[in-house]
Amino acid sequence: MQYLYKNARIQSSKQRGFYMLIESIHNNIIKQIISLQDKKNRDEQKLFIVEGYKQVQDIPESWDIEYIICTEKYKDISFHTDKIYITTDTIFKKIADTKTPQGILAVVKKQEIDLESISNNKGFFVIVDSLQDPGNLGSIIRTAEAYNCKGIFLSKNTVDAFSSKVVRSTMGTIFNVPIFQECDINLLLENFKKKNIKTYALALQTDKLITNTKFEDSIAIIVGNEANGISKDILDNADNLIKIEMLGKTQSLNASIACSIAIYEISKQISVI
Amino acid sequence: MQYLYKNARIQSSKQRGFYMLIESIHNNIIKQIISLQDKKNRDEQKLFIVEGYKQVQDIPESWDIEYIICTEKYKDISFHTDKIYITTDTIFKKIADTKTPQGILAVVKKQEIDLESISNNKGFFVIVDSLQDPGNLGSIIRTAEAYNCKGIFLSKNTVDAFSSKVVRSTMGTIFNVPIFQECDINLLLENFKKKNIKTYALALQTDKLITNTKFEDSIAIIVGNEANGISKDILDNADNLIKIEMLGKTQSLNASIACSIAIYEISKQISVI
Repeated sequence: MQYLYKNARIQSSKQRGFYMLIESIHNNIIKQIISLQDKKNRDEQKLFIVEGYKQVQDIPESWDIEYIICTEKYKDISFHTDKIYITTDTIFKKIADTKTPQGILAVVKKQEIDLESISNNKGFFVIVDSLQDPGNLGSIIRTAEAYNCKGIFLSKNTVDAFSSKVVRSTMGTIFNVPIFQECDINLLLENFKKKNIKTYALALQTDKLITNTKFEDSIAIIVGNEANGISKDILDNADNLIKIEMLGKTQSLNASIACSIAIYEISKQISVI
Repeated sequence: MQYLYKNARIQSSKQRGFYMLIESIHNNIIKQIISLQDKKNRDEQKLFIVEGYKQVQDIPESWDIEYIICTEKYKDISFHTDKIYITTDTIFKKIADTKTPQGILAVVKKQEIDLESISNNKGFFVIVDSLQDPGNLGSIIRTAEAYNCKGIFLSKNTVDAFSSKVVRSTMGTIFNVPIFQECDINLLLENFKKKNIKTYALALQTDKLITNTKFEDSIAIIVGNEANGISKDILDNADNLIKIEMLGKTQSLNASIACSIAIYEISKQISVI
């Protein structure tokens, strides 16, 4: 592959597509990527960023990649798209979310999901209320996907599932589980009641242990904020409060750990695994 | 409380101790705190930092606090020590590990733990090989403590358990579970064999499922690096490989989630819970 001058449209040596060389930080593509670091712009443009070589390679073909931007070292690798921009290490560092960037990211189109399309088969949903830590949300999505979660619902004040940090920590699972953002959880709980999907709030204000609970075939687990747990109105609306038994002096588990143990325990019991 | 000039030694209005006012970044206490951000210095001085109001309040009395440093807003609060330095918001920001510091930290003395002092009662140990993410190690320590883990052993290339980030994410549990750092894990496995403590490596290279495994009363779980799992030599030396059943397209769980599910499952089975 060769490219001769700024913004030249040049053909790959592998004949598989076209590259555009970006050498200026003022380029509109660079400006767009930087703008996508803000949730407001991700929401408006319905786009998000996937960073890192393996993560970009693992984007399923059913998701639309707007474009990939990478440094020269990836120029001979095949991707699901032909729309590839090559840039310098210096510019890539400015658009990367990681401290030591691998030098590749994709801008991906969000998918609209229809709530009615969710299966009525047995299984579980996860409802997330006011969770703040991107790593925690990423881990919850990863575990939920590992046990075929039917859908994840995030409250309005939960960290954005499409922020770079969350996407990265989902390790590609974000593409395989339906995620509904900015949900009115109380309204959702009313809908679940109508559909006879029982809701279980993970909380410390109960003596009901998860191991002593007989779960229905179709349920939803509710997990709350790292410091304050689940909001009072949601706790009041949930069908059940349950907790995970603990022994030590610690008062609680990390929110993503508690949610994951609940998912595991419930999956075993309803014979998902 | 009043203080009139730089480095004045002044008495608390509550008569409970003495404060020292630090207004210079060149003060030796400030220099020491900054030096403790490096593992080498923490190891040499056998000290570590605990940051945040609740975390400082929760330090058990059985641990020696060298001193507390905080901003003026904490001046009327009682702590386990009288050795309290007051500093400015500007200086505190320079010594804090958090982005929006609460304005309080303690410098705490590490405790020497005797390996032989560990109980021979039934229960489990956790062995951590090459784990890199501070949040993951913190969550593992937190879950381990929640199920009365008898001891945690960290390989030489695992993130330092006494770094500020790990300490913070353990939520105070670091004080309640014996932690052995810089271990030669293969040597440890030999010792465990002699003591008839069976070791179980969490790995993907096996068909043996954790739910189909009958655990002995005294065992050790081994968890590995986020990207690469457990080192080959340690896998070869472990008594058993086990894995957690999964369903989704994902290939693995987050390392701290996998370890926590294993701890939970094993604790149930050996009737710790």
